[in-house]
Amino acid sequence: MKVCKFGGTSVATADQIRKVVDIVTSDIGRKIIVVSAPGKRFSDDIKVTDLLIKLGEKALANEDTEVELNEVVNRFHGIANDLGLSNDIVETIKHDLKDRLSRHKEDSLLFMDTMKAAGEDNNAKMIAAYFQFIGVDAKYINPREGGLLVNNRPERVRALPQGDEKLAKLRDEQGIIVFPGFFGYTEDGTLRTFNRGGSDITGSIIAAAIKADLYENFTDVDSVFAANPTVIDNPVSIETMTYREMRELAYAGFSVFHDEALIPAFRKSIPVRIKNTNNPYAPGTLIVKERDYNEQQVIGIAADSGFTAIYVDKYLMNLEIGFGRRLLQILEEEEISYEHTPSGIDNLSIILRSRVLTKEKEERIIERIHKELEPDAVIVEHDYSMIVLVGEGMQYTTGLAGRAASAIARTGANIEMINQGSSEVSLVFGVKVQDETKTLKELYKEFFVKSYAH
Amino acid sequence: MKVCKFGGTSVATADQIRKVVDIVTSDIGRKIIVVSAPGKRFSDDIKVTDLLIKLGEKALANEDTEVELNEVVNRFHGIANDLGLSNDIVETIKHDLKDRLSRHKEDSLLFMDTMKAAGEDNNAKMIAAYFQFIGVDAKYINPREGGLLVNNRPERVRALPQGDEKLAKLRDEQGIIVFPGFFGYTEDGTLRTFNRGGSDITGSIIAAAIKADLYENFTDVDSVFAANPTVIDNPVSIETMTYREMRELAYAGFSVFHDEALIPAFRKSIPVRIKNTNNPYAPGTLIVKERDYNEQQVIGIAADSGFTAIYVDKYLMNLEIGFGRRLLQILEEEEISYEHTPSGIDNLSIILRSRVLTKEKEERIIERIHKELEPDAVIVEHDYSMIVLVGEGMQYTTGLAGRAASAIARTGANIEMINQGSSEVSLVFGVKVQDETKTLKELYKEFFVKSYAH
Repeated sequence: MKVCKFGGTSVATADQIRKVVDIVTSDIGRKIIVVSAPGKRFSDDIKVTDLLIKLGEKALANEDTEVELNEVVNRFHGIANDLGLSNDIVETIKHDLKDRLSRHKEDSLLFMDTMKAAGEDNNAKMIAAYFQFIGVDAKYINPREGGLLVNNRPERVRALPQGDEKLAKLRDEQGIIVFPGFFGYTEDGTLRTFNRGGSDITGSIIAAAIKADLYENFTDVDSVFAANPTVIDNPVSIETMTYREMRELAYAGFSVFHDEALIPAFRKSIPVRIKNTNNPYAPGTLIVKERDYNEQQVIGIAADSGFTAIYVDKYLMNLEIGFGRRLLQILEEEEISYEHTPSGIDNLSIILRSRVLTKEKEERIIERIHKELEPDAVIVEHDYSMIVLVGEGMQYTTGLAGRAASAIARTGANIEMINQGSSEVSLVFGVKVQDETKTLKELYKEFFVKSYAH
Repeated sequence: MKVCKFGGTSVATADQIRKVVDIVTSDIGRKIIVVSAPGKRFSDDIKVTDLLIKLGEKALANEDTEVELNEVVNRFHGIANDLGLSNDIVETIKHDLKDRLSRHKEDSLLFMDTMKAAGEDNNAKMIAAYFQFIGVDAKYINPREGGLLVNNRPERVRALPQGDEKLAKLRDEQGIIVFPGFFGYTEDGTLRTFNRGGSDITGSIIAAAIKADLYENFTDVDSVFAANPTVIDNPVSIETMTYREMRELAYAGFSVFHDEALIPAFRKSIPVRIKNTNNPYAPGTLIVKERDYNEQQVIGIAADSGFTAIYVDKYLMNLEIGFGRRLLQILEEEEISYEHTPSGIDNLSIILRSRVLTKEKEERIIERIHKELEPDAVIVEHDYSMIVLVGEGMQYTTGLAGRAASAIARTGANIEMINQGSSEVSLVFGVKVQDETKTLKELYKEFFVKSYAH
């Protein structure tokens, strides 16, 4: 049994939904499908979820919502029309949206969750209606009824394993199940959404709960590429990679598949395949627990900008038990998550995403470090990029670090930071943001262009 | 004005002390000399400090101390005899030792401090007596009288700046001052010793307080070498290096000059010169604040074994604010200091010196990590060596990391860890202990053997 998730562009128009139906009906194993809200139909289009956010905000501000409500309804109306569905489904959707708008607004976050989830929820209803319309046995199942249980606020939203038993029963349902992605319900029936891209998470949770043979994630690219195709011309496709490799690549700029979505599949060892709705016969990229790393030691290279380094220097720092802990505690108290802490003998750099810092927080952190840790120097540098070389073969292959560092040197870029811990599948280089593109290009040549000789 | 410190082997015999006197009297600037306790006269010899520790331990155990006391007295007696000094100084030393043995023993640590300090203290008295004996204006000054003030227990011992004003008056003394290294006194007159090698610290504190033109540190090697001479045949001498470079090298196995001893000199920018008592006209190694790093980007390569890596892996670790802090807190609560924390995306390695772990502590730490942090995996690996490439030029020179990593790859050794933060003067590689020697040799060839082509 397979769980198939279809992303926003795969369900943005009637034509796309017909492709989805073709894909699902072409394989009897494709039993449960998880759908996103209608995404962009063309590059300047607005996603339904974004329309819903606008609508919700208007409602929260007690302003008139007629225009915004109509925009959402019209998007569904257009698709339903093109699919040849009767007006019933449009009325159902309109009624559902009005009902959501009439809910309590005291807790604005929960209200917005309810509004945002309307895209997936109503799209699932509409797609189920279309399956039935063309004579396929299918039904919409709401996450509450299905068993997608999530934790209570204010904790970060995540699925609770207590829901798994109920979800597992989806196996026994007759026909095709159309399940909306992106949200679940707490024990007391409160709707909470996952992070954006959360339909990937829903699919993964269900695939894990029903112990699917495969979780197929349909999107709009043929596969995951070894490097960003907007920087590298025609990068090679990744045929097979491990969960860890996908995670490391996703972390550093690969946006094909949502980070968090891998966890449930990873925990139950459910293979994941990334496929293209518009080219369903392409093999796509398979994500599994283990692969033969001898074939391809380095599987991909990711690059991401927007990092800041806080460099702290204090003579004999490492004789002070607790120095590092106190430094990290300051960050924790300022609710800052960080990425790396490379260190020398008497110095420590904290690498973090610049977006987690405000000017005010940055100044307060620097002041606290000066006051509480009495360092010899604190230097903040913005505009770092991290280049991450990923591959299960890395820890078993000598010479990769040398090849990588030499490739970077050939570009004339200076390596600001190197980080490789024990038993790792990645090697992280920090460079100045202006050196990011040339570094990525040269590393790609070094590890993926067979004919490249230097 | 110069402060000269003479290490244990420089003051181990009458012949050596005569060399010291020649060195001091050959330069009118050499005004203050700091002396160690008599060290080894030959490789199997026992240092006087070690004899004093045995003596102190016997006394603490309430056992008879006659044999051990005589051993110490005889060492001084032999030197005094060879120097042609009268028995008065031997009687003074004997009396002093008996007085120390009669002190309160409730606080065994303080009692041992008093015993250990007797080597430097009495040697200073004896050397001052010898200066006077040959007609040179010189006097012994006790650290209490001189102003070498230290903090109270239980804090780690360190000099207090409140003593500096008094120490600075040593400038105005007539003749040569012979000052014992290794210990100071708290405000209420309690004697506390520095760490072993602490005479270097005393010299540095005095040099900083009197604002010396130069702090000369006389030992038994011609200079600091670019790599360990017991591994590398005839390594090149380092002519000039910075405090930071010395510190990084000292950290990872270079034992020529004591780590902590650099701090006072560094803070006041007092140049330090390492010289050889047995070859005083050799230029030695000069340690300064800044050097022209274009001449020699890499100044030295240190290697040290005895490291352990604790590797912790948890999916989406870096989304958990406080994960790293809680991990370090466990170490802190177990009073463990660590060296590096290289990290990947979802994993963190803690590199520490194996000697700070007992089997029991290690087990407790692993158990606590499992319980408190719920990681996916915790792996402990012993027998790591750290190879540290040091040089002020490193951060300004592209390609060094690549050359280093490629050199290591040529040996067939796998790089277990790489660590280079921003604005650093060092690049740290972790290798398995069995790969340490070949790695050091190949790196030495790469960076110091001009004719080496590969």
